[in-house]
Amino acid sequence: MGFIEKLNRAVSKNDSLLCVGLDVDRDKIPKDLREKPDGIIKFNERVITNTCDFVCCYKLNLAFYEAYGKEGFFSILETLDMIPDGIPVIIDGKRNDIGNTARMYAKAIFEVLKGDATTVNPYLGYDSVKPFLNYKDRYTFILCKTSNPSARDIQDLKVGNKKLYQIVAEKIKDWGENCGAVVGATYPDEVKEIREIIGKDRILLVPGIGKQGGDLKKSLGYGCVEGKNVIINVSRGIIYAEGGSPEGIRKTAERYRDEINKFRP
Amino acid sequence: MGFIEKLNRAVSKNDSLLCVGLDVDRDKIPKDLREKPDGIIKFNERVITNTCDFVCCYKLNLAFYEAYGKEGFFSILETLDMIPDGIPVIIDGKRNDIGNTARMYAKAIFEVLKGDATTVNPYLGYDSVKPFLNYKDRYTFILCKTSNPSARDIQDLKVGNKKLYQIVAEKIKDWGENCGAVVGATYPDEVKEIREIIGKDRILLVPGIGKQGGDLKKSLGYGCVEGKNVIINVSRGIIYAEGGSPEGIRKTAERYRDEINKFRP
Repeated sequence: MGFIEKLNRAVSKNDSLLCVGLDVDRDKIPKDLREKPDGIIKFNERVITNTCDFVCCYKLNLAFYEAYGKEGFFSILETLDMIPDGIPVIIDGKRNDIGNTARMYAKAIFEVLKGDATTVNPYLGYDSVKPFLNYKDRYTFILCKTSNPSARDIQDLKVGNKKLYQIVAEKIKDWGENCGAVVGATYPDEVKEIREIIGKDRILLVPGIGKQGGDLKKSLGYGCVEGKNVIINVSRGIIYAEGGSPEGIRKTAERYRDEINKFRP
Repeated sequence: MGFIEKLNRAVSKNDSLLCVGLDVDRDKIPKDLREKPDGIIKFNERVITNTCDFVCCYKLNLAFYEAYGKEGFFSILETLDMIPDGIPVIIDGKRNDIGNTARMYAKAIFEVLKGDATTVNPYLGYDSVKPFLNYKDRYTFILCKTSNPSARDIQDLKVGNKKLYQIVAEKIKDWGENCGAVVGATYPDEVKEIREIIGKDRILLVPGIGKQGGDLKKSLGYGCVEGKNVIINVSRGIIYAEGGSPEGIRKTAERYRDEINKFRP
């Protein structure tokens, strides 16, 4: 089953556009787990168990695992194994490189880690993105307008009468069917613009809700197409809720799911 | 010892501006090694043993290791251990992310893998680069004009009367002292422009010689400052020379080192 079908089934089953980001910072997890050698895995197990009926997908940001070396590497594999079959996984690596090398990154993400989708940086252009798009049943979210304050430094530069992220959105539309855009909820007007440029069928991955303070209502209003085609990612805002207790995580995930549905057009 | 001092000592000791890229594709290494479980490590040992008196640094592109999962992960660690102490290592990950996450990538590369330098993508702007620059004794090469044909798609877009890569070069100059630029030898005129923009003291990492057919003579002529401050990377052109035999690798590394020195102003 391809990513889009898998995603839409999970969206329907859990009535959710929520993606939980499994971005574990060892310094922030509850103390009893922090001290265990397999603390990251145990914490992710807690998060998955308590959120898997509220999400449409999970996202693993590789940075948080790479920072823990060998333990982190094995935690990725164990975590991926724990995610229920029907829920797609976005491997958030924001990788890219020249074609010959990008091919190896695509292999790592789609064959070794068996991700359903990934994130890719557009700065190197089409031949760096193509090796990812060659996996036709997977999906590639290309960074368009990121959620951080410095996104403006490069992405807002004026190219003729457009901004760079608008050009990138046009490229995403041209480069292939199985790619969408990353656009931060911290820039809701850009969600609108990017949706208009890339068309109705592409999926937007929208981080920046939660700790970063993005605008959920506008992002959904502008981004959704018939109540779909948007994934709202929350990481820190859920996994560390109420000290990262099972009840805190569960309650907060449900609340985010329901809040998203309230604004879902 | 900081990266620049370590680099300059290796440049002097081996009279070299050559960086060998340890980018092992299992399908391309000699058949006897390909079939061994630790084939990647054994092959890298062969490359390091036969090139370490001809290089100023090594570069590991993480894509080639990630593509081999667990084996690849351990191969990184073993390979880093085999590199002689006096030779700096560039961990080529082309990572980046929002600040909170970039911090974890910087930790992975500079603390876990203990890289002397790394490569970073500029698309997310200053707050995504800053966590790398905070490691004052390390060095960050920011992608400016990459060696691939599609580099033009985004990097050559006109921003006012400049091209995007020229703006990125200006940012590199502004963002901090301990960062330089990646610029492909396949675009030698851009090597000239970027050197003029970022000033004399920054280091240029120049791939694209060898298999990609970049212009070595011009790249050195435009990029070098007093015979230094440029690193010429060759990966495939050396490690698979003459079927990846020890003699082939050794002879070819020496030839590249000498050819670089011939054009070194």
